[in-house]
Amino acid sequence: MADTCTFCDIVNGVIPAEILYEDDHAVAFLDLAQATPGHTLVVPREHCRDLTDIGADRAAELMRGAVHTAALLRRALEPGGMNIWHATGPTAWQTVFHFHLHLLPRYSADDLTQAWTHREVPLTSLTPLADRIRQHDARR
Amino acid sequence: MADTCTFCDIVNGVIPAEILYEDDHAVAFLDLAQATPGHTLVVPREHCRDLTDIGADRAAELMRGAVHTAALLRRALEPGGMNIWHATGPTAWQTVFHFHLHLLPRYSADDLTQAWTHREVPLTSLTPLADRIRQHDARR
Repeated sequence: MADTCTFCDIVNGVIPAEILYEDDHAVAFLDLAQATPGHTLVVPREHCRDLTDIGADRAAELMRGAVHTAALLRRALEPGGMNIWHATGPTAWQTVFHFHLHLLPRYSADDLTQAWTHREVPLTSLTPLADRIRQHDARR
Repeated sequence: MADTCTFCDIVNGVIPAEILYEDDHAVAFLDLAQATPGHTLVVPREHCRDLTDIGADRAAELMRGAVHTAALLRRALEPGGMNIWHATGPTAWQTVFHFHLHLLPRYSADDLTQAWTHREVPLTSLTPLADRIRQHDARR
């Protein structure tokens, strides 16, 4: 647990939240800023900051909780679809530094906007970048 | 495997892709539409459509692959941060109907825009919605 962490405080019942789901590893509660009705955060019970320290095991357990929470939101709200969003680091707009997945139920008339425009390039133009990334594969 | 599925074809080597990571459950390859340099899709080997049919076990295994791929992208590209994005259903802008997680390395001068504006409401105003959702918890 971090010295001062709002999400640790929610997990530990120190500050109130509208909790929708919990299991041994994950707690899900409504985001105070409802981007769409039912916008929910899914967080690990154990404090970690972001993708750099969550580890594969803990992330896998969290994802189980996210799938169960998404199913609950579908049953309750019957949205048209669902997005998952996660941010690691201020550059990626992370503002609370306890790992969290956003679940965003989607509706045909909601206010979300696309974060990027889809523009495809030829596959061969990506080969130099892919080669550069693959050189850093620690398993090679 | 779906009758016609681009991502099944990539997983099975039928059509080419710049594959960065693979394990028994997941395959990660560069998105042809690079929202940011290193924009990568992580998909399950086994075909499933979206959050409604992936199941908790398969989603958990996929998340492990996403964490490993994110670490590779960090080592190779040293981005300022990272986002994860997922879409279930056309209403949520899903366009390829084989489950996928987007990994978006982030840089201070990139072009992404925020999908929603953060506006908080008092916790108590969310209680009726939370009560309505909790009534659909199949475990109760």
